[in-house]
Amino acid sequence: MASYTAPLRDMRFIYNELFDSSEITALPGCEDATPDLVDAVLEEAAKLCQNELFPLNRTGDEEGCQWDNGEVTTPAGFKEAYAKYIEGGWNGLACSPDHGGQGMPGTLNVLVEEMMCSSNMAFGMYAGLTRGAYRALNTFGCNKLKALYLPRLASGEWSGTMCLTEPQCGTDLGLIRTQAEHDDDGNYALRGTKIFISAGEHDLSSNIIHLVLARLPDAPAGIKGISLFLVPKFLPDENGEPGQRNTVTCASIENKMGIKASATCVMNFDDAKGWLVGEPHKGMRAMFTMMNDARLGVGMQGLGLAEIARQSAVEYARERLQGRSISGTQHEDKPADPIIVHPDVRRMLLTMRAFTEGARAMAAWIARHIDLRDRATDADARQASDDLVQLLTPIVKVYFSDGGFEIANLCIQVYGGHGYIRDTGVEQYARDARIAQIYEGANGIQALDLVGRKLPAHMGRYLRRFFHPVQAWIDDNTTQPELHPFVLPLAKAFGRLQIATGQIAQSGLKNPDEAGAASTDYLKLFGLVAFAYLWARMAKIGLDHQTDDEADFYAAKVATAKYFMDKILPQTGALFSSIMAGSGSIIDFPEASF
Amino acid sequence: MASYTAPLRDMRFIYNELFDSSEITALPGCEDATPDLVDAVLEEAAKLCQNELFPLNRTGDEEGCQWDNGEVTTPAGFKEAYAKYIEGGWNGLACSPDHGGQGMPGTLNVLVEEMMCSSNMAFGMYAGLTRGAYRALNTFGCNKLKALYLPRLASGEWSGTMCLTEPQCGTDLGLIRTQAEHDDDGNYALRGTKIFISAGEHDLSSNIIHLVLARLPDAPAGIKGISLFLVPKFLPDENGEPGQRNTVTCASIENKMGIKASATCVMNFDDAKGWLVGEPHKGMRAMFTMMNDARLGVGMQGLGLAEIARQSAVEYARERLQGRSISGTQHEDKPADPIIVHPDVRRMLLTMRAFTEGARAMAAWIARHIDLRDRATDADARQASDDLVQLLTPIVKVYFSDGGFEIANLCIQVYGGHGYIRDTGVEQYARDARIAQIYEGANGIQALDLVGRKLPAHMGRYLRRFFHPVQAWIDDNTTQPELHPFVLPLAKAFGRLQIATGQIAQSGLKNPDEAGAASTDYLKLFGLVAFAYLWARMAKIGLDHQTDDEADFYAAKVATAKYFMDKILPQTGALFSSIMAGSGSIIDFPEASF
Repeated sequence: MASYTAPLRDMRFIYNELFDSSEITALPGCEDATPDLVDAVLEEAAKLCQNELFPLNRTGDEEGCQWDNGEVTTPAGFKEAYAKYIEGGWNGLACSPDHGGQGMPGTLNVLVEEMMCSSNMAFGMYAGLTRGAYRALNTFGCNKLKALYLPRLASGEWSGTMCLTEPQCGTDLGLIRTQAEHDDDGNYALRGTKIFISAGEHDLSSNIIHLVLARLPDAPAGIKGISLFLVPKFLPDENGEPGQRNTVTCASIENKMGIKASATCVMNFDDAKGWLVGEPHKGMRAMFTMMNDARLGVGMQGLGLAEIARQSAVEYARERLQGRSISGTQHEDKPADPIIVHPDVRRMLLTMRAFTEGARAMAAWIARHIDLRDRATDADARQASDDLVQLLTPIVKVYFSDGGFEIANLCIQVYGGHGYIRDTGVEQYARDARIAQIYEGANGIQALDLVGRKLPAHMGRYLRRFFHPVQAWIDDNTTQPELHPFVLPLAKAFGRLQIATGQIAQSGLKNPDEAGAASTDYLKLFGLVAFAYLWARMAKIGLDHQTDDEADFYAAKVATAKYFMDKILPQTGALFSSIMAGSGSIIDFPEASF
Repeated sequence: MASYTAPLRDMRFIYNELFDSSEITALPGCEDATPDLVDAVLEEAAKLCQNELFPLNRTGDEEGCQWDNGEVTTPAGFKEAYAKYIEGGWNGLACSPDHGGQGMPGTLNVLVEEMMCSSNMAFGMYAGLTRGAYRALNTFGCNKLKALYLPRLASGEWSGTMCLTEPQCGTDLGLIRTQAEHDDDGNYALRGTKIFISAGEHDLSSNIIHLVLARLPDAPAGIKGISLFLVPKFLPDENGEPGQRNTVTCASIENKMGIKASATCVMNFDDAKGWLVGEPHKGMRAMFTMMNDARLGVGMQGLGLAEIARQSAVEYARERLQGRSISGTQHEDKPADPIIVHPDVRRMLLTMRAFTEGARAMAAWIARHIDLRDRATDADARQASDDLVQLLTPIVKVYFSDGGFEIANLCIQVYGGHGYIRDTGVEQYARDARIAQIYEGANGIQALDLVGRKLPAHMGRYLRRFFHPVQAWIDDNTTQPELHPFVLPLAKAFGRLQIATGQIAQSGLKNPDEAGAASTDYLKLFGLVAFAYLWARMAKIGLDHQTDDEADFYAAKVATAKYFMDKILPQTGALFSSIMAGSGSIIDFPEASF
């Protein structure tokens, strides 16, 4: 019953129409990424996701991963699908040609990531972590480590992990206890236990490369004494092939709410051989680079699940016959009308649509700026893009993961009782989506990052990278009456964001807890304004194409934008009021009374 | 690690201080329900729930129900716990002494229901359905059926079900196909398949009494041709003991997202022997009576799960050490501060508290009016209470079940990664809570019931039963400055509700789809105003007791009310804006474009 169809038309719209794809092809190394090639890549990716990965999603959830004496078996079919995935060169799509990658723009890769998350989020995690390890090592590793490991990570032949969390520390990495000591070879021996390690052990790749946070013997206490190490499952032999088994082992895997096909491992390091990545005690900087990318990846999980949930809900709403339209029967020939006629069902479907298309636009927007940051020839342009990416990363992480969970739950609601039954497959989307609000920095931490680090950074410079273009766009488009239904609500919401920003900046100076108390509301407000900006821009394009061959497609853009402005954006009013009410009711509540 | 402590102090506050318990004891049959007795009952119920039911909650989820050749086995310990439950007379707490019940007020029973849902929602469902069957049969059954079945249902020796849903019909019961024909004994033979039947088969009770919607041969088409039948699993013999096995069988049970210890059955009726309950073709009326009670029961599930989630989150937030307070270290002696110091964690805990205490007040409010409806000597008083119950039932169902799911998810968020692991037990609360938004009429249907049936009923009479006391309370309390932080936000939100009501009434007259499109927003707005009214009243009581022995308890009431007004109630602004933006963006979206 369930099926997934990659939203290729909308991806092309975002890639070529909302944004100017020629700016991407103008970047060094991206010359080949012409619209035609991008189309072809997306179509091939769609086939892989629709035909190979999606069919394994439901069975993967039911079967889960199995642990036996340190070995982890992924669900039936995962191994074969992973082989096809690396055979097709998908893992290296955006990796450097120096390491055998295809050097495609990240903006393209992010759309492929969405498809993978829609079709099989648990599967996608193995690949996503490998790409994260690739990037961290590429940025911080020495040439010897890079030469040995990067080609294998780019191909996906070897996979990667991020080993941060320990039983006593998740958010607060300053509490890390894992120790690294010099060994006889001049490298390191790591000792400690890491928990919640995704893809820590599995049977998909011939080697697993762990990037591990640990302390050197002379490390300062806390966060400033953390170093990053590379610990392979198998030590590469003289030919670079997996050789001797290292003393890093999987003690158990977790039984979780969702992403059951992704192995979440307890990893024991028993004097496991490791190599330092980057400088001693500077591990957090490397990890943050990796984490920032990972946070966008988590955002894409939210979008991916929202998209498959949306598609499933639309399909069901067209097929399920139940009740009659309250404004008059629409299908006399049937025993009942399809539930898509009911306004409240349409409300849910439109909420899903407004989220997925808005999020896709935002994902492409930030991915473009990552491409610019990484490849633009002009240093100022690189800086400007980096600033915007820094600012928007926590927003994408939170707003997309919250949205993914909300939309997955709306899908269950459209299905009614049938949505609660595991066989139907849609409740899995909600269970899978739930983790995205938690890992790679819980959403509350992201909100704190936004108000505590990103707002004040460089005297508000990050912020201006967003405020200026939005203000400019509003100024440029206020005179066109047909745009008023979009520009005016945007301007109103943007005004609220500006005032709230001032309020938080001011009160946070007096007492950081004030900013902390407002942070979650503020992040949501920011996310809504960002979506409104992108929806207004999409509405404008839609209005310009009302007589095209694809008039329906563009009319739907305009109509969805209108829905967003009418029904979603008003939430900014509530968030604004809550922020402006101050934080006394939160901060002053006596701890003992909770 | 996990524990549950019944919130007895708050229950006493609601029962005796927020409302006047002497009005209840003044009702015929309730004379014995003195505050002392009510206290004693609550304490005993707390012991049962804390010591017997809660310890089975997690194992029940892990083990689930097992189906084997038509027989269903509940998880280990359920049978013994159920025996204790009926031995203690808990099932008949609010049943009539005529049938061996204890005749206690429903207001007391509803608090016990909350405890059962907190400690073990799946277990509570078996009992809740039995009480629902008791009430339906008590209201609509003939004397012979009542004499035979009610005492056994009151004791819980026999359990009950509601058999409505069929594969082709959930919400739209007019599509029911199950047939009932006269049999040779002058009774009925039922033939058909029912799905999603909670407690349809299990091993807790010695007999199961199904209340089944079906069609007589001469039935008019649609909803007006539905009759209600009683179909026992075992036909009572001449002594009223379970005798011959009836031809109603459980074909399978569902594998669900949550409430895994509650058996959700496919039931086949193969000329099963049945008795008509009430009049032919009038089954929907009886079912609605049963459903209305059930909807309040579902609301209590939301509250119950929110309460255990709140307690779990508070406990974890006090124990988990992670990070330092951003306004300065609070526990130098510890490696980190407990996360309860972080404003965003406090925000989550206060949101939980504002919901659970507000919902408990609202539950007791509506339960009181059910007691008044059922027992008041004055017919006008009975009518007035019935009106209010009719109006508030869909609001309690939706607002509590949405809240239950939201709060359960906040608990997971407070736990972070540990909340996503099944062993911790808290992700179960979210999975269990999710169904409450769906069954007994999906929340969208409840919202439609509110705007389509309850608002226009008797020219707005139901509505006035809410509007008048709220307006009167505001008028009575505007002059006290210390109440302004509560009365003014309430008055503002109430004004929004009044305007939105007018808007919906007007636009709905022109086009019912307009009201349908606004219904969910409107219901939430209504729920928020109802909570604000109760929180303002609670704040007033709290302010009056600031120098009591229990000053902390009352101060926390005031502080939580302030949090609700500052941080939750502003949502009314967003809902109001959304409603006033009209429904064009929902109704006009082309069906083909979804």
